[in-house]
Amino acid sequence: MTDLITADLALSQLHGSLEDPALRSMDFLNEVAERYPAAISLAAGRPHDELFEIEALHRYLRRYCAHLRDDRGFDERAVTKTLFQYGPARGVVNDLVAHHLAVDEDVHVDPASVVITVGCQEAIFLTLRALRSDDRDVMLAVTPTYVGLTGAARLVDMPVLPVPTDETGVSIPDLVHLVRQARRDGRRPRALYVMPDFANPSGTSMNVATRRALLQVAADEDVLLLEDNPYGHFHGAEPRPPTLKALDERRRVVYLGSFAKTVLPGVRIGYVVADQVVGVGDGTFGPLAAQLSRLKSMLTVNTPPVAQAVAAGKLLEHGCSLASANVRERAVYRRNMERVLQALESRCPPGVTWNAPRGGFFVVVTVPFRADDETLESCARRFGVLWTPMSHFYGPEGGENQLRLSCSAVSGDALDEGLDRFLRFVADKEQCLKPVDGPGRGVPSR
Amino acid sequence: MTDLITADLALSQLHGSLEDPALRSMDFLNEVAERYPAAISLAAGRPHDELFEIEALHRYLRRYCAHLRDDRGFDERAVTKTLFQYGPARGVVNDLVAHHLAVDEDVHVDPASVVITVGCQEAIFLTLRALRSDDRDVMLAVTPTYVGLTGAARLVDMPVLPVPTDETGVSIPDLVHLVRQARRDGRRPRALYVMPDFANPSGTSMNVATRRALLQVAADEDVLLLEDNPYGHFHGAEPRPPTLKALDERRRVVYLGSFAKTVLPGVRIGYVVADQVVGVGDGTFGPLAAQLSRLKSMLTVNTPPVAQAVAAGKLLEHGCSLASANVRERAVYRRNMERVLQALESRCPPGVTWNAPRGGFFVVVTVPFRADDETLESCARRFGVLWTPMSHFYGPEGGENQLRLSCSAVSGDALDEGLDRFLRFVADKEQCLKPVDGPGRGVPSR
Repeated sequence: MTDLITADLALSQLHGSLEDPALRSMDFLNEVAERYPAAISLAAGRPHDELFEIEALHRYLRRYCAHLRDDRGFDERAVTKTLFQYGPARGVVNDLVAHHLAVDEDVHVDPASVVITVGCQEAIFLTLRALRSDDRDVMLAVTPTYVGLTGAARLVDMPVLPVPTDETGVSIPDLVHLVRQARRDGRRPRALYVMPDFANPSGTSMNVATRRALLQVAADEDVLLLEDNPYGHFHGAEPRPPTLKALDERRRVVYLGSFAKTVLPGVRIGYVVADQVVGVGDGTFGPLAAQLSRLKSMLTVNTPPVAQAVAAGKLLEHGCSLASANVRERAVYRRNMERVLQALESRCPPGVTWNAPRGGFFVVVTVPFRADDETLESCARRFGVLWTPMSHFYGPEGGENQLRLSCSAVSGDALDEGLDRFLRFVADKEQCLKPVDGPGRGVPSR
Repeated sequence: MTDLITADLALSQLHGSLEDPALRSMDFLNEVAERYPAAISLAAGRPHDELFEIEALHRYLRRYCAHLRDDRGFDERAVTKTLFQYGPARGVVNDLVAHHLAVDEDVHVDPASVVITVGCQEAIFLTLRALRSDDRDVMLAVTPTYVGLTGAARLVDMPVLPVPTDETGVSIPDLVHLVRQARRDGRRPRALYVMPDFANPSGTSMNVATRRALLQVAADEDVLLLEDNPYGHFHGAEPRPPTLKALDERRRVVYLGSFAKTVLPGVRIGYVVADQVVGVGDGTFGPLAAQLSRLKSMLTVNTPPVAQAVAAGKLLEHGCSLASANVRERAVYRRNMERVLQALESRCPPGVTWNAPRGGFFVVVTVPFRADDETLESCARRFGVLWTPMSHFYGPEGGENQLRLSCSAVSGDALDEGLDRFLRFVADKEQCLKPVDGPGRGVPSR
């Protein structure tokens, strides 16, 4: 289209989010991956897909239909209507999701507090849309932050205040200070977004004491906690601590659920647990989930029942336990993580440090040179390996000499080859000529 | 939860859309339907579902996988990845949708101008989100208006100016006047939302002259046309005129596509064709669709590939022609529409008038009494039949003595029984005691 003299529209006439670094960052990373298709990706946070098989989709669908017939007494017409017709905005498999949470997380919620969403991203968007009432409302997020949170906040024009991290996963004193300062500035801090288990991108986990401290701050300072937990099932040898939601006695936690890594990404099923009691004004009350469903009815109407059925079929096949459904996946990710850490340990040049997450998909490496977009591009071209500059997960500054390695999408020989290329890249003399701007910020490295 | 003294949140602390009549109206209509489950629904705009069969889902999935293997040369691993993994935000079946538009609508677009969405509702939301840059931006909509447009606009805090209708389907002089007046008031009118074929709720269709006039106004006054076309395939004996998009020579039309009625609602697949050229600022250009995809990546990431596959399988089964895929459905709706019109013709009491759409799902009836929510509730209780008060499709006033009958969801004996109940209701003496506030507005009745 470059032969056209005039455009129909200028980007500046469209919503400001389209010029936001959060959205540009996704584009850039996708572009680099497309430009160097032979590069091995230690950047992608995609789940391992060698265990996927098409026939499973058919089996899951049949399993869910059998459940409707046998366990819920639906006749053939009702089964067909459930899958083919529009359904309620809140979803059709809410009871199975609630059962899964009871089985795997010791979280006990009324299915009426659950909304089934088009991936966790829609759950994040709906929650922010509800909480952003006017321009005084702001979010807080533990930084470095998942770009999906930053992007969704941008879509509703809601500022996100970065909360510094420390070795516990979040600096509680900074959090309290930021909330109070925001209030003094006439802003309304509504919620803190946090990923307590094997966070994306930092890999950091919070211990139980930190979780309890966060819940206390949420109650004392009157903010909600948005807990996002896509990686919790991929822990190492040690069991992980209870989720914030499991510890939540005062309905301070909105729990954002993703099935992308534990069920399969291609159905795009997520959910939100929002049991906060909303006073509707006429003396009646209902869960926040009911309000999120009303917003959803104007956003996507309802989550595809066919996709819900596939996800539900996999849940049913495993007694609603994703812990048991993911035994093989957990082993793959654990083995990959060990391989990454061993390679770094045995072959990293001096001056390079990294953290050692006990699970999840991500390791953060601190290098003695700028690990920016330009370095990534040169690394892809010269060494054939991709990683993610950590600066994408910060605001205007932060993470300049850090990078994220993912150990989810690539396994076995390809992972070894990728690590080999990566280690040759960090050992390369040329990188060391690049200036370093002080110590790495944010994620603690060992 | 009514035993709780205090709520965690008040509705007034949440986004204003949650108190908007557009969202309340959906709730009310669903509630009435739930409270009177034995009532026959001439309210629901759901598609006819007696032709649905579960096995078709499996067949469509297999058909799409065969297409990837046979027509596109994918190996088994690539087929599996396409269905199971995350996919591009723009979608994976864009080429098939573009082919369908060429076959059925004589609309020829680059697949890169198509974004596959979670139902047409997400397509509407994305378009409005892109166009609403700041609080000067406003939409226009032909009134009475589909509530999905009003609701999506509310989610992005974008006012909708109602454009009066006349027997052509839109009053062009009023449209021009409103656009110019808005500009004089410091507002930026961005687009007119319009359903030119068998509109929901009015049933009205625009002739070719009106369509051309709209395109001319769009070019002269520099506004876009958002064309929504969920019912175009359900025409009567006469062929329907070309869509606005087929007549669009200057990229003035953003085409909003729905497969809910022509494929199946339960996959929630819609799409948007946005071929408007956007200047990105660095001298490069790209279609508006690319910008909508970027917004989508922060809203739902991508449309479930499994759901896209099912919809694509049905398209492929019919050579991408939804005209031929819907031969039986078209006959059902046409027969139902004739039945509704015949019943009104032969048995309606004096003082009741109605329009006679040449296709689609909806008939508007003007009655000599207030057809409001209270009347609907009393009708459901006393006569066991549901319809939709037209006032739900207007702003603060309009449509007070009009109601919408749908002829899509109920067929055969149930439709006859529903019509019988409805006619007893309109003939009922009690209704006539209710005050009438002047003549019906908006939809022309015969």
